[in-house]
Amino acid sequence: MPMERTLISQTPEKVGQEVLLKGWIKVKRDHGKVTFLDLRDRTGVVQVVATKLKEAAKLRPEWVVEIKGLVKERPEKLVNPKLATGRVEVEAKEINILARAAELPFDMGAETLKISLPVLLDYRPLTLRHARVQAIFKVEETIIAAFREALKKEDFVEIQVPTIVPSATEGGAQVFPVKYFDYDAFLAQSPQLYKQIMTGVFERVFTVAHAYRAEPSVTTRHLTEYVGLDAEMAFIDSFEEIMNMVEKVIRFIFARVETENRAELALFGASLPKLSQRIPRIKMREAQQIIFERTGRDHRAEPDLDPEDEREISRYALEKFGSELIFVTHYPTKKRPFYTYPDPQDPEYTCSFDLIGRGLEWVTGSQRINDYDMLLAHIKKWGNRPEDFEIYLQAFKYGMPPEGGFCLGAERITMQILGLENIREASLFPRDMERIDFRLPKKEKK
Amino acid sequence: MPMERTLISQTPEKVGQEVLLKGWIKVKRDHGKVTFLDLRDRTGVVQVVATKLKEAAKLRPEWVVEIKGLVKERPEKLVNPKLATGRVEVEAKEINILARAAELPFDMGAETLKISLPVLLDYRPLTLRHARVQAIFKVEETIIAAFREALKKEDFVEIQVPTIVPSATEGGAQVFPVKYFDYDAFLAQSPQLYKQIMTGVFERVFTVAHAYRAEPSVTTRHLTEYVGLDAEMAFIDSFEEIMNMVEKVIRFIFARVETENRAELALFGASLPKLSQRIPRIKMREAQQIIFERTGRDHRAEPDLDPEDEREISRYALEKFGSELIFVTHYPTKKRPFYTYPDPQDPEYTCSFDLIGRGLEWVTGSQRINDYDMLLAHIKKWGNRPEDFEIYLQAFKYGMPPEGGFCLGAERITMQILGLENIREASLFPRDMERIDFRLPKKEKK
Repeated sequence: MPMERTLISQTPEKVGQEVLLKGWIKVKRDHGKVTFLDLRDRTGVVQVVATKLKEAAKLRPEWVVEIKGLVKERPEKLVNPKLATGRVEVEAKEINILARAAELPFDMGAETLKISLPVLLDYRPLTLRHARVQAIFKVEETIIAAFREALKKEDFVEIQVPTIVPSATEGGAQVFPVKYFDYDAFLAQSPQLYKQIMTGVFERVFTVAHAYRAEPSVTTRHLTEYVGLDAEMAFIDSFEEIMNMVEKVIRFIFARVETENRAELALFGASLPKLSQRIPRIKMREAQQIIFERTGRDHRAEPDLDPEDEREISRYALEKFGSELIFVTHYPTKKRPFYTYPDPQDPEYTCSFDLIGRGLEWVTGSQRINDYDMLLAHIKKWGNRPEDFEIYLQAFKYGMPPEGGFCLGAERITMQILGLENIREASLFPRDMERIDFRLPKKEKK
Repeated sequence: MPMERTLISQTPEKVGQEVLLKGWIKVKRDHGKVTFLDLRDRTGVVQVVATKLKEAAKLRPEWVVEIKGLVKERPEKLVNPKLATGRVEVEAKEINILARAAELPFDMGAETLKISLPVLLDYRPLTLRHARVQAIFKVEETIIAAFREALKKEDFVEIQVPTIVPSATEGGAQVFPVKYFDYDAFLAQSPQLYKQIMTGVFERVFTVAHAYRAEPSVTTRHLTEYVGLDAEMAFIDSFEEIMNMVEKVIRFIFARVETENRAELALFGASLPKLSQRIPRIKMREAQQIIFERTGRDHRAEPDLDPEDEREISRYALEKFGSELIFVTHYPTKKRPFYTYPDPQDPEYTCSFDLIGRGLEWVTGSQRINDYDMLLAHIKKWGNRPEDFEIYLQAFKYGMPPEGGFCLGAERITMQILGLENIREASLFPRDMERIDFRLPKKEKK
């Protein structure tokens, strides 16, 4: 077949022409001598009609084929409004089988897959082919590309930082050890230390970096390997500037998803968070007071917001400000990482923030300590060994401006925009305590 | 200082105006009552003149400052043609020290750093601030962005694939083990298997992914953690199509670097590889014959090209075709990974290629086996266990079209374009057998 391929999305423009299509059989319906095929390629689905073609009878879902055929307009009453190609069909002249597929373990033809999450993940190479699953990753692609584009406009430089590190980035024990030749190394919990170092070079940097958390718990919102969208900026005058940048980036991402992923949003009945003119900003202590006044739940002495607090403050932001996102600022110093800048007015609290909405954290960030002596003191106070942070400390030893930054989780944002129930749905091949591609066998436990 | 910051690159447009600059002291020259400062920010360097300002005397290289001052045109004979801001200088009115720096271990003011590679890396947070070092990463940023842009134009989808994997991606023992809770896992040697799976979903995919090679050797062209630019495409008619795509992407990258990094190329006296109308393509066996005829070195029975062969074939391509890059194709089946498609005309050789130039490999790629039974047979024949490739095999079990792809190393391409002597120079924080940020201590060896 030396003919050039026509993509399925192009078929409506080729009525009356002979075309060569390539794709997967999505659904086959036999009606005696006539076989109806829904053919899928990367651009969509089209109906193919095969009459008296012996290959057609053999075909099964997910078989890969080339089909030569004639594009025909459908009669008005047979137009399928659910399909972008619904006003045409292709009359097959020749079918060439490129690859066969085993019998499917479940129906892939339905609009929504009717399978449990473990099955969805056990058959990932197959389930990812479903239109509704594909849509998640088209949205995620847009989010990541928009993150980059927003920051490039603001003069940020994209950097690539290592993930094999000599010590636990954020402190703590929740880190994966790597056997590095004859040495012990770790997987980075975040690109934090390196992006900070790099503000000493390019002032404004961002990175799309894999990060690893060995948290020994299984929740609907954590992955052990995730994609972090990290940014960091130097020569800030206040930590408000960092939130201003977050707001700019978030609005840019939402605008891009809105225009580029209309179809994907529709598949999930999802809409982007409503935002007020300016995203409201309140201190954590104020948030706790508001929650107390609204619900009677007294968490005013707590050092952090719990999940129910985050849901309540999300409701408050929408009711009071008409915003589905709200910045909560000034978390206690002892609840934040060692590098967080203490508020000069009140050093028990930090120049830090979380962007919260729809009951969950979307972004986290802060101003960082840029004074070498203070940073060294904090590292010790937090129970870390300065020698584990030697390359990081070196940057501050040789002069670092006031700086700060923020981080979004790509999967988390995707989940929140689409209203997914589990973050695993927003990772192509999610890793957790119980799964690396397949469920980890219990018997191999040491 | 509530004044708005002026970036150094903007100073020539602000003659006669008062400005607020922020940056690092690059060089300080004391001339009695007058102090000359070269101030650096992310946009460049400008000369600041401080007369009778007591803070000026204190300043040292890499101190971080804010300087309020007046932009003045320099007399014609004092214009500095080496500086983009060379026709102006700033008369300092007020200097505010934001951060001090320790005394530098070497001169950072020279046009080229006069230090050895180990010292360059031992002081990475500092040396990365040097203009010539920064330039490397601006070129790398362009390469990566251009790779993405070229493929997006061709309808590829950007994906994020995991790096914690259940088995060695490419087979072999050169893999880093990860302690994954109570299980054994590994760091991915490449995103190969996942990008292949994803052609069953989006047909055309690419990813910018960290990859890990535990090769127990120290060379000038290998890193243990590197950034791979990987692409994969389905529904190909021949493996020539993959090379056509490589050619398109490479030309696009070169064009982008040429226009966006003129200054950086100039710093290295570098130029992009000269290409003929079409990059020449020859089989490995032909290359060996040519090398034999040109040099008398008879490697015609060898299963691969050695480094000297690659240098010789690079010379040949330039002399014969006027191209600094050449595709060498059809490497022996036994020298390529299990997934490589054997040439149907001659199954001892594969539908594979390397793009070679300036003495080194730039890109590697091939058509892949898409038939489930053949793939299973190859996995076994190559000494691997099919159960270690279960998720990968599942994709092929459920129907995969003819497909293939290619990979470029971001650091390798940067090194080759700029003519760097060691690939470590092209990695912000290079990892090798002897270094993770700092030189690994010999005594900790087990």
